[in-house]
Amino acid sequence: MTQGNAPFSRAEYDRRIALTRTAMQDAGLDLLFVTDPSNQAWLTGYDGWSFYVHQGVLLPLEGAPIWWGRYMDSIGAQRTCWMSHDNIHGYADNYVQSTERHPMQDLAKHIRALGAEGKRIGVEMENYYYSAKAHAVLTEELRDAKLVDATALVNWQRLVKSDEEIGFIRKAARISEKVVRTAIEKAEPGVRKNDLVADIFHAGITGVDDDWGDYPAIVPLTPSGLDATAAHLTWNGDPMRAGEATFFELSGCYRRYHAPLCRTVYLGKPPQEMLDAERAQLEGIEAGLEAARAGNRTCDIANAFIGTLEKHGIKREGRCGYPIGLSYPPDWGERTASIRAEDQTVLQPGMTFHFMPALWMDTWGLETTETILIKDDGPAEALCTVERKLFVKD
Amino acid sequence: MTQGNAPFSRAEYDRRIALTRTAMQDAGLDLLFVTDPSNQAWLTGYDGWSFYVHQGVLLPLEGAPIWWGRYMDSIGAQRTCWMSHDNIHGYADNYVQSTERHPMQDLAKHIRALGAEGKRIGVEMENYYYSAKAHAVLTEELRDAKLVDATALVNWQRLVKSDEEIGFIRKAARISEKVVRTAIEKAEPGVRKNDLVADIFHAGITGVDDDWGDYPAIVPLTPSGLDATAAHLTWNGDPMRAGEATFFELSGCYRRYHAPLCRTVYLGKPPQEMLDAERAQLEGIEAGLEAARAGNRTCDIANAFIGTLEKHGIKREGRCGYPIGLSYPPDWGERTASIRAEDQTVLQPGMTFHFMPALWMDTWGLETTETILIKDDGPAEALCTVERKLFVKD
Repeated sequence: MTQGNAPFSRAEYDRRIALTRTAMQDAGLDLLFVTDPSNQAWLTGYDGWSFYVHQGVLLPLEGAPIWWGRYMDSIGAQRTCWMSHDNIHGYADNYVQSTERHPMQDLAKHIRALGAEGKRIGVEMENYYYSAKAHAVLTEELRDAKLVDATALVNWQRLVKSDEEIGFIRKAARISEKVVRTAIEKAEPGVRKNDLVADIFHAGITGVDDDWGDYPAIVPLTPSGLDATAAHLTWNGDPMRAGEATFFELSGCYRRYHAPLCRTVYLGKPPQEMLDAERAQLEGIEAGLEAARAGNRTCDIANAFIGTLEKHGIKREGRCGYPIGLSYPPDWGERTASIRAEDQTVLQPGMTFHFMPALWMDTWGLETTETILIKDDGPAEALCTVERKLFVKD
Repeated sequence: MTQGNAPFSRAEYDRRIALTRTAMQDAGLDLLFVTDPSNQAWLTGYDGWSFYVHQGVLLPLEGAPIWWGRYMDSIGAQRTCWMSHDNIHGYADNYVQSTERHPMQDLAKHIRALGAEGKRIGVEMENYYYSAKAHAVLTEELRDAKLVDATALVNWQRLVKSDEEIGFIRKAARISEKVVRTAIEKAEPGVRKNDLVADIFHAGITGVDDDWGDYPAIVPLTPSGLDATAAHLTWNGDPMRAGEATFFELSGCYRRYHAPLCRTVYLGKPPQEMLDAERAQLEGIEAGLEAARAGNRTCDIANAFIGTLEKHGIKREGRCGYPIGLSYPPDWGERTASIRAEDQTVLQPGMTFHFMPALWMDTWGLETTETILIKDDGPAEALCTVERKLFVKD
């Protein structure tokens, strides 16, 4: 029985755990330790801004998962996880940021209590919150265990979304539309960028009707002019200016699910090369959506887009998309497949991607993107309804 | 000469680098690789939401630091770092979240080019963004180097703030006051929590006069009622209710500098035990501020506070504060000293702490906190001016 306020049905959590256990067995794992906050939430419902201290979920091959973290956060785990309180363990506060003790010493005790000391234990070697030190301490503590790299093992199980999850992403998409429309509407010469970002946050977090807005895993990226040639600069207090393009890289968030959506606004009359690029980009997006069909591969989307750009004389390299859904800072991507020329992931119905065919040129940037859903038949569905174009405010 | 738009004077960066080099020499390091985004920004000015991919700063014992990261972010580094563009290196996009390549292979090339392959190289083993995998790859690539744990080496140099930094923190404090006052003013029975949080974000990011608001490293924490017994739950769409306390754990942010400030609001008539606790807490804070003097130690602050609570029959354990200043998600603390009974750090003028004497009880929480500055003489200065009390809206 569900104990806390986890957002999904128990059947949904059972589905996720079954998928993960199959992957564990394929990898020869007896136990999995999950550090990625998104993976923790996906398996247990845990939701709190506590990932700045060591915490995680232990998943054995049988029984319910175990949430483990700082004692003060175990109270929050009791309030958000679906498992019984017996499956929630807190460590003492003097482990926190101590130079004498490390939380992984406490985790090792729990692993021993599960009888897993001599077993094969998966850990997420490439994750923001599993530090080099954490791994060194755990290795030292569990000398008889074999710690195996299980990076992205859970993330890959998240690639195909359930209907419940798609429902959440559609709610996020409604919020994304509101957020992007707010940005386009408020952008004017003389408006300070931080004031515009304040309105963007306000639109996203008030949400749409009963669907309240959660915090997106990335803050609004809204660079103008030359700053828009760089990819991840945040705002400042400078006023927007006529004769500049600003791109808005934004997402609504509904209960940690995202639907990123980017549009670009030009204040004034855009240069002809930008209008030409817009045409190529829109045609490339159409080609990409056409290629984004069940049975095709991620590279087919990338090649369709890049091929169309080439016909227009634009050379584009790098990734043009990634899977999205449940996420925590610092990234709303799922870090598994990529929409890029060398990625061979076969598309399946229920996959959701941020198709990100942005152009960063020498003196300006043009971002027009879509969150897309792979369907049973036909091309992908773009989940947001904001008009797909360069917005010109002259 | 400063090339980009770094926020501080060149003399300030020189001061920081000199301090860091002394610490490197004390630790016997020939080269330091810094992953913590706060440490990167502190040494170079780099500012972007790109810490979700591998990046960092190499600091040799001579010459300017080197910023290293994803190619598309190197453009942002050129626009925000003070160093010449020659000291900014980008790696190719096909290293990003690849299962075949790892960015640390590229970093190793730069380290070899510095002639540091056989040397002692400091790495931040306990940091969000230096993964277990990153360390494993770097160790493999640099077999002749000795990788030494230099966790918090730079963070400790940040503990005493310069006048320029204190100026930034004072600006953040003005924004914190506005943010907390907004929360107190808007809290009413029936107000949806997410709508209140939207107003909090808006107040913080619009900022105060010319001092535009940056994103705080932690989102607003605003739990009510039983949720306030847990430490780090974020908001939802439930309406606020009469008969409940809500604590607001908030910070303004000015150019990545923070001044956290918490207050608690009770809607209705608070129970007597909460009023008793308030009295004890306020007396304890006064005692803590009195003890927060240059020459005393961090534990003196904690003991003064905890001792006062004990006189009132309240037992309080755990940490009650930490240094603050420059920070990036997921944490606004500096992760060095702690205000706790076992910490012996000697207080010096220019240190800034979030003095966090919060009480989390079985059925409610009471947070009343201050950002404090250690002065040359006398007790610490609380940098914010919001009245220190439990706010009762009856």
